[in-house]
Amino acid sequence: MNYINGEVNNSEVNSYPHLGLQHDDFRSAAHALVDRIIDYYGTLAERQTFPNVKPGFMRTLLPGQAPEEAENWPQVFSDVEKVIMKGSTHWNSAGFLAFFPCGTSYPALLGDLLSGAANPIGFSWASSPACTELETVMMDWLAKALNLPEFYLHNGIGPGGGVIEGLASEATLMTLSSARSKAIRTQLSLHPNQTHHDIAKRLVAYSSNLSNSSVEKAGKIALVHLKLLDADKDGSLRGETLLAAIEIDKKNGKIPIYVCASLGTTACCTFDDLTEVGPICEKEGMWLHVDAAYAGSALLCPEFQYIRKGLEFTTSFNFNPHKWMMVNYDCSALWFKNSSHAVNALNVDPIYLQHEEMGSAIDYMHWQIGLGRRFRAIKIWFVLRMVGLEGLRSHVRRGVAEAKHLEGLVKKDSRYEILFPVTLGLVCFRLKIETFDEEKTNELNRKVYEAIHADRRFFITPASVGGKFFIRIATGHVNCSTAKLDECWNVIQDVTENLLGSSPHLDEYTADCSR
Amino acid sequence: MNYINGEVNNSEVNSYPHLGLQHDDFRSAAHALVDRIIDYYGTLAERQTFPNVKPGFMRTLLPGQAPEEAENWPQVFSDVEKVIMKGSTHWNSAGFLAFFPCGTSYPALLGDLLSGAANPIGFSWASSPACTELETVMMDWLAKALNLPEFYLHNGIGPGGGVIEGLASEATLMTLSSARSKAIRTQLSLHPNQTHHDIAKRLVAYSSNLSNSSVEKAGKIALVHLKLLDADKDGSLRGETLLAAIEIDKKNGKIPIYVCASLGTTACCTFDDLTEVGPICEKEGMWLHVDAAYAGSALLCPEFQYIRKGLEFTTSFNFNPHKWMMVNYDCSALWFKNSSHAVNALNVDPIYLQHEEMGSAIDYMHWQIGLGRRFRAIKIWFVLRMVGLEGLRSHVRRGVAEAKHLEGLVKKDSRYEILFPVTLGLVCFRLKIETFDEEKTNELNRKVYEAIHADRRFFITPASVGGKFFIRIATGHVNCSTAKLDECWNVIQDVTENLLGSSPHLDEYTADCSR
Repeated sequence: MNYINGEVNNSEVNSYPHLGLQHDDFRSAAHALVDRIIDYYGTLAERQTFPNVKPGFMRTLLPGQAPEEAENWPQVFSDVEKVIMKGSTHWNSAGFLAFFPCGTSYPALLGDLLSGAANPIGFSWASSPACTELETVMMDWLAKALNLPEFYLHNGIGPGGGVIEGLASEATLMTLSSARSKAIRTQLSLHPNQTHHDIAKRLVAYSSNLSNSSVEKAGKIALVHLKLLDADKDGSLRGETLLAAIEIDKKNGKIPIYVCASLGTTACCTFDDLTEVGPICEKEGMWLHVDAAYAGSALLCPEFQYIRKGLEFTTSFNFNPHKWMMVNYDCSALWFKNSSHAVNALNVDPIYLQHEEMGSAIDYMHWQIGLGRRFRAIKIWFVLRMVGLEGLRSHVRRGVAEAKHLEGLVKKDSRYEILFPVTLGLVCFRLKIETFDEEKTNELNRKVYEAIHADRRFFITPASVGGKFFIRIATGHVNCSTAKLDECWNVIQDVTENLLGSSPHLDEYTADCSR
Repeated sequence: MNYINGEVNNSEVNSYPHLGLQHDDFRSAAHALVDRIIDYYGTLAERQTFPNVKPGFMRTLLPGQAPEEAENWPQVFSDVEKVIMKGSTHWNSAGFLAFFPCGTSYPALLGDLLSGAANPIGFSWASSPACTELETVMMDWLAKALNLPEFYLHNGIGPGGGVIEGLASEATLMTLSSARSKAIRTQLSLHPNQTHHDIAKRLVAYSSNLSNSSVEKAGKIALVHLKLLDADKDGSLRGETLLAAIEIDKKNGKIPIYVCASLGTTACCTFDDLTEVGPICEKEGMWLHVDAAYAGSALLCPEFQYIRKGLEFTTSFNFNPHKWMMVNYDCSALWFKNSSHAVNALNVDPIYLQHEEMGSAIDYMHWQIGLGRRFRAIKIWFVLRMVGLEGLRSHVRRGVAEAKHLEGLVKKDSRYEILFPVTLGLVCFRLKIETFDEEKTNELNRKVYEAIHADRRFFITPASVGGKFFIRIATGHVNCSTAKLDECWNVIQDVTENLLGSSPHLDEYTADCSR
């Protein structure tokens, strides 16, 4: 056929089903996929966590281009195992002990399915009132369930409220950008002849050297000098460290504007001291953001409320229900004490997004980096209702109990040391060689790590803090269990014995270590 | 019960199903939900597009806090209609003619369901090889299907390749940040004593005044002076306008670094002239990003290839399969001619994210703003295979044919004028009052718009370009049809007659207009 630029040929139109499949074909495909997912979850515990594939493996499995004509569901379905499962790292297999768990549950899957079907782009209230309003109600439910300060409620005192972002990275960038814009506005009102960059170059933000890498990345994107301050030996950012940095910076003409404090650092699940950092931020008029991406879910339980001390000083608070609250990826909850600081920072309002309820309703597009947004509140709603707060507490408690169990195993073997307090579901430990230097110890532990990874039965991640390389094991996903942790511990002990021999005298390891 | 800080009570553990529901309860719930979704899609055409709700409506429908104990599926399921559907703007009902369509299809829903079940966080290759590799293959499939320049292929010549972001906003921010970092590095190599801000304050980026609001927002976040240049009378950014701006800026010591050109502007679906803008960017060493969020899908069809002229000059290219390519929200495809410019811009590599294949595999976390990412490639794979390229072309052609049909109706009524060429699936028009001034014409058209919105049978959005307020109607979603557009056109004509009376002499409108 000859195609003429831009010409419409009506015979081409309407020859395919508008939804890509007929209703009944979708019904049978979706029912089959649901059954397949149940099989997957039913056997997931025993799947090999990390796949035996090398970079580029998929090129040989797939054609070089998309098909011209539609293929049928059975063809596609049969490739799910051959292509997807073959190369997947199974985040919820029993052997997955890496990073932090990624939440999943059947109620979340149901919610996500409905969200995909409704499929609004909820940038403004008018773009789908249900999408915006369920989000405000869910953010209040979550704030109450976590016992956050009342100023974070939509339905509370003041201009506070919550929003669902995709990831903690976005929450950090959004709050840092907001703090930056607020500081620039303040300075411009004092010195109207300065440029934004004259001011921005003097701004400084702080976080600890244990904060997530996305904090540093947010500084790079927002072009704010983000200083990583040393955490203390327990992995906590302390008031005196922050104060010393602020004093030096102020002497040098800098303007301190923002602290990103961590509750539950990524490497070692340690906690910055908000009772010390908070009053300093308050006195200096600085924005105090809390990144509790992983640990935030623990606030569901009364016995972990003690980690929230100092939250009353915060300006914004973020945690990821997609980590430890059984909600599927992606879902990150962010609260502002004063949402107008976010809205004023980045607001651009073209006419095609205006609507008649503006001003009396929330337009969440101004609370986030991007413009569009998924209807993520449904999956939170389904999980909170179908699991219930007691169910979620039980899930958190199980993860902590598993970590305590593993901690007990490590402590019984004098060749190892625990490196940070096991507060929640993360255990950090290493082989120690007391007569040797740090470098040798690191080298040995790296070999232990590499041997566990090569064994493939467990997928774990290492970390390095204060020059110490160590192994971190994260518990608490749906298929984690004390029995599986026992098995993992046996693997670690076997690996250690292969490296060290059975001698209890670790200094005999000298020769091996230099190989 | 008394809770002691941090203490684990083992009796609390394991009392709830780990997946939130038993396998068989999920099976029956998911099957029922699938059937419900089919009912929804089956009746969606006739749903009232915009709901009869006011801000705050949902507070009275839901309890003030989450339940302590789990509720069962029937309770939750029965609320879907009462709470969600009641307050939803139905983006795929036949009366939805606002914004641009948001893609949906049954194959996309299947893919999204599988993606949610697999649920890896694909930040690095090791975090799930299948997630990364299917994405690289799909981005090559899409690049070939759209006939993008070969340098955008992963499997092609050079360091190019594609990545799936969530939204076009992220793609713009990512490319602008990358261009900024590249410029700062270059300047630092020439003037090592300057600070980042000394350089950043001199940087300038350009886009047309018709580019999406997210472009301006990206400038605010990245702290780059983004100048909105006037599009010409056809809504196109022209070379001479860009050149004039560059010359003035260079004379004033500025450094031009970046242009965001639009193929298919949001307000009026017009096209910047890449054959003019491109060579200027090349000569000046500027980054040329193309935002083709909506219109990009048209490149699937040979007869719309003419809009791609000049793509060989681009540095990055972005379109949203979630708009017009039947893929559910969110899914935005971005290609870099040289991905190392993105990776070098924002790379932070903590040890807990390192893995043994680093350097030989892609770690997509460096290609985007955030750290984590959904497994979005599955839904693209399912749509491309189960709809096929011919099916997708048919979908695009149907949308264009609908727009041409509506254009024909508008042109037959001399009271109206078409404002921009109807190139794809958007028709922009207004009532004209030739004897009156622009302000009166705008006021009249605003009344027409408000009356259509108040009628509630159709949801449309207005826009304003060059001081002219007009109505824009976007066609092409799954339930749009020429019959429905006829009906919409009748509503518009009724509304017009109510406002104007039946007199063909529009200057009799004077009195009404001043009310």
